[in-house]
Amino acid sequence: MRDFSTDHRWLSINTATVRFSRSQALPLNAILEACAAHEIRAISPWRDQVAAMGVTPAARQIRALGLELSGYCRGGMFTATDTAGLRAADDDNRRAVDEAHELGAPCVVLVVGGLPGALAGKAAHKDIGLSRQQVTDGLGRMLDYARSANMPLAIEPLHPMYAADRACVNTMEHALDLCDALDPERTGALGVACDVYHVWWDPKLEAQIRRAGRERLLAFHVCDWLTPTRDLLNDRGMMGDGVIDIPRIRSWVEAQGFAGYSEAEIFSSENWWKRDTDEILDTCIARHRSAV
Amino acid sequence: MRDFSTDHRWLSINTATVRFSRSQALPLNAILEACAAHEIRAISPWRDQVAAMGVTPAARQIRALGLELSGYCRGGMFTATDTAGLRAADDDNRRAVDEAHELGAPCVVLVVGGLPGALAGKAAHKDIGLSRQQVTDGLGRMLDYARSANMPLAIEPLHPMYAADRACVNTMEHALDLCDALDPERTGALGVACDVYHVWWDPKLEAQIRRAGRERLLAFHVCDWLTPTRDLLNDRGMMGDGVIDIPRIRSWVEAQGFAGYSEAEIFSSENWWKRDTDEILDTCIARHRSAV
Repeated sequence: MRDFSTDHRWLSINTATVRFSRSQALPLNAILEACAAHEIRAISPWRDQVAAMGVTPAARQIRALGLELSGYCRGGMFTATDTAGLRAADDDNRRAVDEAHELGAPCVVLVVGGLPGALAGKAAHKDIGLSRQQVTDGLGRMLDYARSANMPLAIEPLHPMYAADRACVNTMEHALDLCDALDPERTGALGVACDVYHVWWDPKLEAQIRRAGRERLLAFHVCDWLTPTRDLLNDRGMMGDGVIDIPRIRSWVEAQGFAGYSEAEIFSSENWWKRDTDEILDTCIARHRSAV
Repeated sequence: MRDFSTDHRWLSINTATVRFSRSQALPLNAILEACAAHEIRAISPWRDQVAAMGVTPAARQIRALGLELSGYCRGGMFTATDTAGLRAADDDNRRAVDEAHELGAPCVVLVVGGLPGALAGKAAHKDIGLSRQQVTDGLGRMLDYARSANMPLAIEPLHPMYAADRACVNTMEHALDLCDALDPERTGALGVACDVYHVWWDPKLEAQIRRAGRERLLAFHVCDWLTPTRDLLNDRGMMGDGVIDIPRIRSWVEAQGFAGYSEAEIFSSENWWKRDTDEILDTCIARHRSAV
């Protein structure tokens, strides 16, 4: 396993981590500058932040600052109540691939969607099996397009507490079943994003990481699970402040040959987002060295 | 599948559902009377409520009112930081078996414990594998005692969001692996409690219910998953108010021959616990008929 204790060469910052500074929204150009100023070499930007800046200006500044991407957040949301909704998702996902290409991302991270309407508070139906079929079908269509653009897709299994409203793929095993179905040749076009927050609890995690292997481990995300957790979405912990044995999980991922970035992705409305960007980044760097 | 639409013959009330009435704690004797008054035939009491009343008086009143039990909540919490802690859990679990016997319960429901200390906010360690080993060992010891008392034990896999602080067994598959290891002969001494809240999201649920079979399906609990869910513990929904396809899961359980109670267990500090007991019970009855 790589030694992270002496530098932050392999730290990437997911831009959601610094989406707010002292509770004020921080624009992407300021995030990019702050990361570069902290000698952070990689980021993973969110599409809404990129859209606000413009893809081309964002790509230009990323290159000018010498930043790499560890992923692009996010595509997916394949579920819908009708054909028009499914087509709209397809269109949006093709745009995500194009943007990822322009930004130089190594993969598009996919949050696959849950029960349509649930995120807005009112699920259109309760048939999670139907949602899963739509995910399989939509992912297949997106994969065709992404292959032609040579852009890998990384399915991110989300914690089961998001099964209703965000993603009905909730285990590494399920995500890898999709990979087996849609890319049986293991071409590298389709894989998984392993976020410790979502999968740390799974007794089958080590075995599934082994099953994924190098070709399908496309991204590694870190934060921590706090006890208590006060909010289902925005109470993630800084690495080291919770109960996840992050180094152990990283050792499993690296045992498969993964040698990419460790991406810090921390949604924290009640704590970190209230602090100054420099403090957040300094802490990410320190914890990357001590707790990842 | 049984028709629940015309009566509430197979409704059981977990006493946590009416733990509070208009936000005031309701003692067990009042809960028992309220259930009997609503012609509810079964309950599943919690140990703290039984302890407050006394086991023998509680057993006497339960019999006098003609109530059955669908389970006894709860044993388990097998994890600890030292031998003294493990022994204390063993002692407490033997008492749970004795109490269940006196109360006439069909099984003791087990919440197995997570990382020791996490429930109080400070986990003693991050080794969930160690906790799982302690669960296996402690469950084996409890099973020896429970067999001699002829009291079945029902492992309740809890939702993965409770892996740190309440239970490190989070899927039906994991619970059934424990059953296979500790009761390979499928004697009926060890099985599972299937609570739709905890397992509804699992793509392997139907297959695992089939794997469990009649001998290992010892309890069936219902409530609903709300979108949004505002609290990890106490924001469960009334059956029909959320996204869980409860009838579908019940059909899977009954296809295995399960013919017991459907136990309503709703922790709801912000909604139902603020209401009057009669309203809670009337709604449970109505939803048992329309949404279970």
